[in-house]
Amino acid sequence: MPGTHIEDLSQHVGGDVELHGWLYNKRSSGKIRFLLLRDGTGVVQCVMMKGNISEELFASFDQLTQESSFSVKGKVRKDERAPGGFEIELSALKIHQIAKEYPITPKEHGVEFLADRRHLWLRSARQHAIMRVRHTIIKAIRDFFDGRGFTLVDSPILTPNAVEGTTTLFETEYFDLGKAYLTQSGQLYAEAGAMAFGKVYCFGPTFRAEKSKTRRHLSEFWMVEPEVAFNDLNDNIELAEEFLEYIVQTVLKNRAEELKNLERNTTFLENVKKPLARISYDEAVEILKKKGVAFEWGNDFGGTDETVISEQFDRPVIVHRYPAKIKAFYMKRDPLNPELALAVDVLAPEGYGEIIGGSQREDDLDVLLQRIAEHKLPQSAFEWYLDLRRFGSVPHSGFGLGIERTVGWICGLDHVRETIPFPRMIYRLAP
Amino acid sequence: MPGTHIEDLSQHVGGDVELHGWLYNKRSSGKIRFLLLRDGTGVVQCVMMKGNISEELFASFDQLTQESSFSVKGKVRKDERAPGGFEIELSALKIHQIAKEYPITPKEHGVEFLADRRHLWLRSARQHAIMRVRHTIIKAIRDFFDGRGFTLVDSPILTPNAVEGTTTLFETEYFDLGKAYLTQSGQLYAEAGAMAFGKVYCFGPTFRAEKSKTRRHLSEFWMVEPEVAFNDLNDNIELAEEFLEYIVQTVLKNRAEELKNLERNTTFLENVKKPLARISYDEAVEILKKKGVAFEWGNDFGGTDETVISEQFDRPVIVHRYPAKIKAFYMKRDPLNPELALAVDVLAPEGYGEIIGGSQREDDLDVLLQRIAEHKLPQSAFEWYLDLRRFGSVPHSGFGLGIERTVGWICGLDHVRETIPFPRMIYRLAP
Repeated sequence: MPGTHIEDLSQHVGGDVELHGWLYNKRSSGKIRFLLLRDGTGVVQCVMMKGNISEELFASFDQLTQESSFSVKGKVRKDERAPGGFEIELSALKIHQIAKEYPITPKEHGVEFLADRRHLWLRSARQHAIMRVRHTIIKAIRDFFDGRGFTLVDSPILTPNAVEGTTTLFETEYFDLGKAYLTQSGQLYAEAGAMAFGKVYCFGPTFRAEKSKTRRHLSEFWMVEPEVAFNDLNDNIELAEEFLEYIVQTVLKNRAEELKNLERNTTFLENVKKPLARISYDEAVEILKKKGVAFEWGNDFGGTDETVISEQFDRPVIVHRYPAKIKAFYMKRDPLNPELALAVDVLAPEGYGEIIGGSQREDDLDVLLQRIAEHKLPQSAFEWYLDLRRFGSVPHSGFGLGIERTVGWICGLDHVRETIPFPRMIYRLAP
Repeated sequence: MPGTHIEDLSQHVGGDVELHGWLYNKRSSGKIRFLLLRDGTGVVQCVMMKGNISEELFASFDQLTQESSFSVKGKVRKDERAPGGFEIELSALKIHQIAKEYPITPKEHGVEFLADRRHLWLRSARQHAIMRVRHTIIKAIRDFFDGRGFTLVDSPILTPNAVEGTTTLFETEYFDLGKAYLTQSGQLYAEAGAMAFGKVYCFGPTFRAEKSKTRRHLSEFWMVEPEVAFNDLNDNIELAEEFLEYIVQTVLKNRAEELKNLERNTTFLENVKKPLARISYDEAVEILKKKGVAFEWGNDFGGTDETVISEQFDRPVIVHRYPAKIKAFYMKRDPLNPELALAVDVLAPEGYGEIIGGSQREDDLDVLLQRIAEHKLPQSAFEWYLDLRRFGSVPHSGFGLGIERTVGWICGLDHVRETIPFPRMIYRLAP
């Protein structure tokens, strides 16, 4: 049954093909009628010329409604004027099913209306472009690490401890073992992986039961987290730079058409090349002060602060060495100033906020024990993690990149809800 | 800090390198001492010759215990007798941390002892081989679909309905929307994807809260599920054949060393080439009867039945057209015999059981409505799924392949617990 795909028509010019798909649109002009067929790989117009084909076949034009499924046979013609550059001189048509009153029409629909019909909304040209960019980003991420000798070490989704409280955790009963919690990050497991394989990454869904209703929050989102033994903060920053360059340049190269369809101005994306801008937290605070933002040293940056900082740069900006107090217990302190953590965030330009967060990890057992106590965390939950410092501890670093924020930034989207096939948010669990 | 990796030593013969890693083993013989350094990419012996290096440096040999972390500098020498073919003439050594009483010694340990120390067990040669094969399988899967024009459409993990009862589902509170359930399969979402993109796959973790304690069951496992519009059962079988051939031949080609370390007899793996063996359910039942197995037509095959069937073949066997009664509601019936579903399973040889399960899907709205009623499923939960039959329904097919069973089969393992970095089973949620 397979037949030919629209994306391969250039190999069949002058030949006869069979195509299968759905009606994207149709138009009529006197004796000539056009069926726009979409098959998931593209859209092509099929031409019906009165007199050239049977009356019955010509009449099937009227039956076909938007998203009806049908197959056609016909000759492939190169035509500069046609969308996609080719058209089909239709000689046979078989209708599979007539769609009655397809709800998503070319007119404007509200976002909730579309979100309720996400399973159909995915058929639209805009969603196609976004999902193709998403796929390319994910492939680029895996290719980047696979090509550099990293080993994939999938971290578990079900985890046994709620070490920082359960307020942002999804929990479930786990047989007779009590509660399990959906992972918020695979990092600690990736660290175990790095001690075994040197260079590793994990890549999977992560969860936050945050009661946020912003355009940047999903309760289920995908994250990639590389972790490298013997990498210090500087090595980590260099890895993040190369990584971002690779992702963005791969999308620009392979998804130019999609970015054009999304009307994405790619100027800032083209700038994503090593070296990116690098500033310390202190320098970032200076920027905020110069711009008249009321901000106190020691606080974490809010969304608006991030936007003000990133607006000063024409590419992503790396911010390093944050106050240790606002960062996680496992981050190593700066030997030159123990008030600072060897943390690094990368802020995307154009107000897209933090897309990468990482650090060098504390590798000294005694210091880490002290941090766990200071943060009032239960040491027992970390015994296995502490083993990584007991048995061959080494300097190591890593970071996490959120896929959906990256898709949103690269595609230039207002809201993360379009960046994943079936988004999960505080008010949305369906379809 | 990065230095050189052991896997790249062949490019540095005669040159000086710096290596970072952990002590895998050591041995001494008169004036010469050997440190076996592992760095995650391989193991290399570092040679210390009394008289050639300082007394202090020579004495550091005694300090180093198994899994202690250290860095060395030295000259790379090609040596056929050395493990890996190279050795390091050590000139400098820096100890990072001395591991005290590393619990996993070269002696035999019980499986529970090792499983409790999974974060350390991953450092062993056997686990390295398995995880590298796993990585290669996952990469081969993605490369296969990416190279054939499939679009990745990630299905959601949190889903709103428990349509077949909650006994094998993990559930969690989802904000104010009631319960959410961890996905058991992305298939229904992949079908929506196929109607949008033609050829799609989803690939992520799936969950079963099954109270099984067998060597084939994990409560959290990864699954890849391709779904193709306009593919019938036969197209689906051909796709599965090509897919399995690609995965297995890629592992044989790229992970020969690892399979050798696992002492895997690869005879049956080498046979995984198109066409595989194909039999109907009826023919499979005949085989069981001939072999004297008490089996009644209409039942599903148990683990032992699968083993008896698959033992008749020297490669995976495709079993198609099962009794509809034992298969899911969404499977299309065989037009030649409506008692049969257009289902297909692939059984791995050597007793590894079902690794692929799939079918052609029911594409007629009215028939599907009837099936939902027959299976006493709540229609409301499937309204979005039924939309796929209302708006441009087409013949389509797909299948799922479980990653861990595939890893177990290809590596020749007795139990799935070694096929994933951090296994989750009825009695195991940690580390």
